[in-house]
Amino acid sequence: MHCTKCHNEASIYIRRHNTAFCKEHFIEYIYGQVEKAIKKYKMFEKNDQILVAVSGGKDSLALWDILISLGYKADGLHIDLGISEYSEKSKETVKKFAESKNLKLHIISIKDLYGLGIKEIAHKNRKTPCATCGVIKRYIMNLAALELKYNVIATGHNLDDESATLLGNILHWQIDYLKAHSPILLEDEVGFARKVKPLYRVSEYETSAYCIMKKIEYIIDECPMSIDAQSLKYKEILNIIERDSPGTKEQFYFGFLEKGKIYFSPEKRDIKLNNCKICGQPTTSEICGFCRQMTKANLEPLRIKEFVIKLKDSYGQI
Amino acid sequence: MHCTKCHNEASIYIRRHNTAFCKEHFIEYIYGQVEKAIKKYKMFEKNDQILVAVSGGKDSLALWDILISLGYKADGLHIDLGISEYSEKSKETVKKFAESKNLKLHIISIKDLYGLGIKEIAHKNRKTPCATCGVIKRYIMNLAALELKYNVIATGHNLDDESATLLGNILHWQIDYLKAHSPILLEDEVGFARKVKPLYRVSEYETSAYCIMKKIEYIIDECPMSIDAQSLKYKEILNIIERDSPGTKEQFYFGFLEKGKIYFSPEKRDIKLNNCKICGQPTTSEICGFCRQMTKANLEPLRIKEFVIKLKDSYGQI
Ligand SMILES: [Zn+2]
Ligand SMILES: [Zn+2]
Ligand SMILES: [Zn+2]
Ligand SMILES: [Zn+2]
Repeated sequence: MHCTKCHNEASIYIRRHNTAFCKEHFIEYIYGQVEKAIKKYKMFEKNDQILVAVSGGKDSLALWDILISLGYKADGLHIDLGISEYSEKSKETVKKFAESKNLKLHIISIKDLYGLGIKEIAHKNRKTPCATCGVIKRYIMNLAALELKYNVIATGHNLDDESATLLGNILHWQIDYLKAHSPILLEDEVGFARKVKPLYRVSEYETSAYCIMKKIEYIIDECPMSIDAQSLKYKEILNIIERDSPGTKEQFYFGFLEKGKIYFSPEKRDIKLNNCKICGQPTTSEICGFCRQMTKANLEPLRIKEFVIKLKDSYGQI
Repeated sequence: MHCTKCHNEASIYIRRHNTAFCKEHFIEYIYGQVEKAIKKYKMFEKNDQILVAVSGGKDSLALWDILISLGYKADGLHIDLGISEYSEKSKETVKKFAESKNLKLHIISIKDLYGLGIKEIAHKNRKTPCATCGVIKRYIMNLAALELKYNVIATGHNLDDESATLLGNILHWQIDYLKAHSPILLEDEVGFARKVKPLYRVSEYETSAYCIMKKIEYIIDECPMSIDAQSLKYKEILNIIERDSPGTKEQFYFGFLEKGKIYFSPEKRDIKLNNCKICGQPTTSEICGFCRQMTKANLEPLRIKEFVIKLKDSYGQI
């Protein structure tokens, strides 16, 4: 098979577009898809300060690499969840990547701050690790963006992630999700930094291929505690459909954004935000979910904020 | 396993409701589901004249049997599509059922009227058999209801049919479908008799079981020309999901009706209907789809109408 662009030997075949690319033109194609996402949703400009949430997996590292390659100002934020070896490996992978490219990386370690990992905190709260992890990660990302003066938070959600989540929410008609979902959430919608998903047009297969072609080392392991069976199931389902009718996954997700979504957002959401009585972050309650959870687990919610403020003082260093 | 109602030996287990029934209580359950559908959508009352489209398959025969058992006035309409042995077998099956219950059955044979079956008509028109079949069946049902004074047309679409079609239309965001879809289409929406799907709450598995328990003979073969691979694929997909999370199929379809659909019908559809210049049936064009298709195939569109009018004169006989 030959590259659709240059007719040299192709390295990859994108079935849903029926096109093949050599390494060079595949990378160009990926840049094109990400630029298209950024422009289409006005995600950010060259002078925005972007904070990329990097787990050490293929998607977040590919995202960081792509943004830097396209000339955007993007620093990394790694949250060390304190899940034994997995977290250790993740952190090392992210650090190695940042050092090799001389990029600024902030690391916030739950275990260093609290002496407990996510698993133990979840256990104390009688929540699932994934639920606890979600609250903590979101909180830290928002806090870090706020305190360290980033105006955009970028995450590595890809087409497979987004279409699987959409399918799950459609199957259960989670109307609130359908109303709120978008590759961009503006500041005034969330009360925090803008949140964007620049990889929403890029498949899981393509982010892996991108990492391999750009020789980016990433951790292959999924989080050992995340047994998000439902989400994997929906991915599998979409892959079965995609196998028979290439392009359906993209059509489904893009179709939602372009044709379906408008029907779910006739009225503007009018959410009243207060400042959390403990930490000051915007919340719909008196006390934000993070502070509630930490307090319940007998942990000091403000410790992270103090740490992030110290990070600000050491600004400019990894 | 024991019947949830009477604790006798169960004959069937309904996984999505985690209930088991003996024969008697399963039939009662089916009646209940159908009555619920009828009441919820005000499909018809005891004094309505219902015309059931009966193909000879399990769904349409179960539907007819259920409606009669519940005390509704329902006659049958069988359209003989002239597809060799399959149509012959279908017709005999329907006739046998009607005779055994002393029910009124109208039979309209395409081949008798035109000397050609659906396949040949489709071929002449360079359409797929399924597209041609759809136009012809819809036309005949409407015509028969109009001329023979039925005010309701009932079809055997079950939960699996409806949820599979919904999934396909969601995956491709067919907004017009999402706007129009309902287990009931009123007269003024379609310009014809009201159309209802009283089995929308009953699964394919349950209609088969109903036929078996009530000793209703039905033809198992699917139409040999219908290779509606897409629809089968979506059914399969929903069955995979259902296997892992029983109830999802029902939640998905009922959720659409109860929570999702409202978002797609903010404005009232305002379709202007004319009378077909050839046959007089309501149509959005000058000439209705059926008359266009028959004329194109060099066949006389009015022949069916003449036949149906004769059926009216012989009203009361099979
Ligand atoms: Zn090339
Ligand atoms: Zn707080
Ligand atoms: Zn019983
Ligand atoms: Zn006509």
